[in-house]
Amino acid sequence: MNPAVIPPRYDPARDCDSWTVDSSHRITYQIEICPNVLDLENDRLATWCSSGNNRVDQVLVVVDREVDRLYGSLIRNYFTRWDFAPTVLVMSGDEASKGLSAAEEVAEKMGEVGLLRRSEKVVVFGGGVVMDIVGMAANLFRRGVPYIRVPTTLLGQVDAGVGVKTGVNHGDHKNRLGTYYAPLCALIDPTFLSTVSERHIINGLAEIVKIALVKDRDLFELIEAEHKLLSSEGFASNTPTHAEIIRRAVVGMLEELEPNLHEAQLERIVDFGHTFSPSLELIADPPLLHGEAVAIDMALCVAISTNRDLIDRATALRIVRLLLLMGLPVSNSMFTPDLLRNALVDTIAHRDGQQRLPLITAIGDASFVNDVSPTELHNAVALVEELEIELSTVSGFLLPDAGLVRA
Amino acid sequence: MNPAVIPPRYDPARDCDSWTVDSSHRITYQIEICPNVLDLENDRLATWCSSGNNRVDQVLVVVDREVDRLYGSLIRNYFTRWDFAPTVLVMSGDEASKGLSAAEEVAEKMGEVGLLRRSEKVVVFGGGVVMDIVGMAANLFRRGVPYIRVPTTLLGQVDAGVGVKTGVNHGDHKNRLGTYYAPLCALIDPTFLSTVSERHIINGLAEIVKIALVKDRDLFELIEAEHKLLSSEGFASNTPTHAEIIRRAVVGMLEELEPNLHEAQLERIVDFGHTFSPSLELIADPPLLHGEAVAIDMALCVAISTNRDLIDRATALRIVRLLLLMGLPVSNSMFTPDLLRNALVDTIAHRDGQQRLPLITAIGDASFVNDVSPTELHNAVALVEELEIELSTVSGFLLPDAGLVRA
Repeated sequence: MNPAVIPPRYDPARDCDSWTVDSSHRITYQIEICPNVLDLENDRLATWCSSGNNRVDQVLVVVDREVDRLYGSLIRNYFTRWDFAPTVLVMSGDEASKGLSAAEEVAEKMGEVGLLRRSEKVVVFGGGVVMDIVGMAANLFRRGVPYIRVPTTLLGQVDAGVGVKTGVNHGDHKNRLGTYYAPLCALIDPTFLSTVSERHIINGLAEIVKIALVKDRDLFELIEAEHKLLSSEGFASNTPTHAEIIRRAVVGMLEELEPNLHEAQLERIVDFGHTFSPSLELIADPPLLHGEAVAIDMALCVAISTNRDLIDRATALRIVRLLLLMGLPVSNSMFTPDLLRNALVDTIAHRDGQQRLPLITAIGDASFVNDVSPTELHNAVALVEELEIELSTVSGFLLPDAGLVRA
Repeated sequence: MNPAVIPPRYDPARDCDSWTVDSSHRITYQIEICPNVLDLENDRLATWCSSGNNRVDQVLVVVDREVDRLYGSLIRNYFTRWDFAPTVLVMSGDEASKGLSAAEEVAEKMGEVGLLRRSEKVVVFGGGVVMDIVGMAANLFRRGVPYIRVPTTLLGQVDAGVGVKTGVNHGDHKNRLGTYYAPLCALIDPTFLSTVSERHIINGLAEIVKIALVKDRDLFELIEAEHKLLSSEGFASNTPTHAEIIRRAVVGMLEELEPNLHEAQLERIVDFGHTFSPSLELIADPPLLHGEAVAIDMALCVAISTNRDLIDRATALRIVRLLLLMGLPVSNSMFTPDLLRNALVDTIAHRDGQQRLPLITAIGDASFVNDVSPTELHNAVALVEELEIELSTVSGFLLPDAGLVRA
């Protein structure tokens, strides 16, 4: 070695003890209302799945077991018709199956299929559970492969399907492990809703009412006026009313999500109804659907607002009445003062040390509080009970044993 | 309900069938050279760990088992001295323990400790394996909590510790599941290197030589001139030469990573030596360290460059000589034509359908090719063997049985 070629040891540009990495990551994805997505002549999904390479593309299609039973052959025919080599993985969409091992199973299948990392796609057909699992697997496999969401439930179409959250449950905690990972697109096909049970339609309506309560009074009044039409057949037939309800819910959600995709801001009005419910949803017996747990949490928070004079009792009655009219629960015997306190402790850790509790101040308006006390929680439970009793005795209201309410 | 309050059904602003979410996510983190990070009077790490709240902060400290044996009490004393409530989790840093369940174990501990989501920290002390696991757990838990890296190996300090990759192995595939998730900061303390074995120092040197080969000829010549000094004691004493080698390696790495944090661009010169090695590293027997597998891959790629006349034979000899002088392997009996072909198939899937193989065109310069053939791979293996034999017979070179080389 010739020492003359050695560079100077102290280049001032490098003689630095600290460096800052500063980078910006752009995230874009598309939400499309796409009726009849599986129609053999509808090229929308095929276009999204195409790699653009001049070859037979592979596609990994993950399908909820129930969706596969109803639409499995349509799905297979669709991809064959459009010259893909599809591999279909059928998964359970039960909340109980939503664990890390389910995400691992999907990732393993991605490896078996040998998808090209960036140009071949994973497509998921199902509700929130399957979409969350597949989104997480797509994020983890090779640190990220593109995936497409085709939500088949109302909840999926207005909530889980339009955001970027992925996740699985861990222990008693809902979505305790997860990521933010945008799909390439979400294709919303209302015709799937024709085969969704009434209970699951109502489950989705809970999240729509949430958006209405925190930011869209017009949507609330539309639901109030049309609640009798909000059936699976109604949504599947995609009438102007149903289309508008879905659009307003989606737009409302996107307006809140887009500027806060990674939840840098922990005060989120879309967390209304999601403060106590995460601790209730996985332990309730008989089990609750997500929207049902959210409805119970919303009723509780409406009662807190009432006791704080943020809204009047008539408004509280009006909201609880609509929830009951739609067939949602507003209380649960598991919601004891102890459970509520523990739920709040976990939520406070999740919201970085403060309650940041969204409360409505009117139908269509929300703000945040940090000082809800155990006594208030206790009183709110009592008020919900009072409102339920009051509504059950009002003329024109019936609360039969089955829990159904009819005007 | 009064129908008059119902809003118009077709608001043109909402009457839209498609929405684009377009958002930008800023990622910043800090790399600091921070000697004596565990000195009780050094407040650097304590400052990074502080929540800024007026309370005793919790901190979850995850420590490699071997690091805990050597530095465990120093680590505990440090956090106690600075008024933290530390919880220490000791983990194996073996490649074989680097599975999804290890990440799950760390996430579970985060839940037990009840860290505040954004303001309380996870700190990891260890090499690449433990850092990758903890980074992944930090990403998954509550969809992301802040973590701080304190790499204790040379490889960790110049490579795994300064980027944003996290991951675990799955099946025979290295880092098959993972994410991009930036730490809050990485604190590089060269004094840890005093207790790193010579083999692990050499392991880190392989990645430093990689950076030198693809973009920093001066660094290559500095290593060539000073290779006898590149011991654990040398690095730990942080002489100007050693400090400059680490700085150049870190700066070189950051220059490549910062504009491409999420690998939007799949042609990455830092992937030099990482085309065939991922398939070799986990199956070699006796096991190879990461840098050793990378060195073997680099020698193979140097041979491919030579056979393509991208570099001359003298340059190839010079590079292989340096690798051998440092004590790195340049060949392995597992590198059969079959393994190389399969490794390339997996890498092609990983690089989205093309080889995108980085090859050096000079010491300090690289470019990409997409047309390497099986025959070329075969010939390259043969050339590496030839170069090894030639070097072993050159005057002044000895290749004793133990595989050590002395000038």
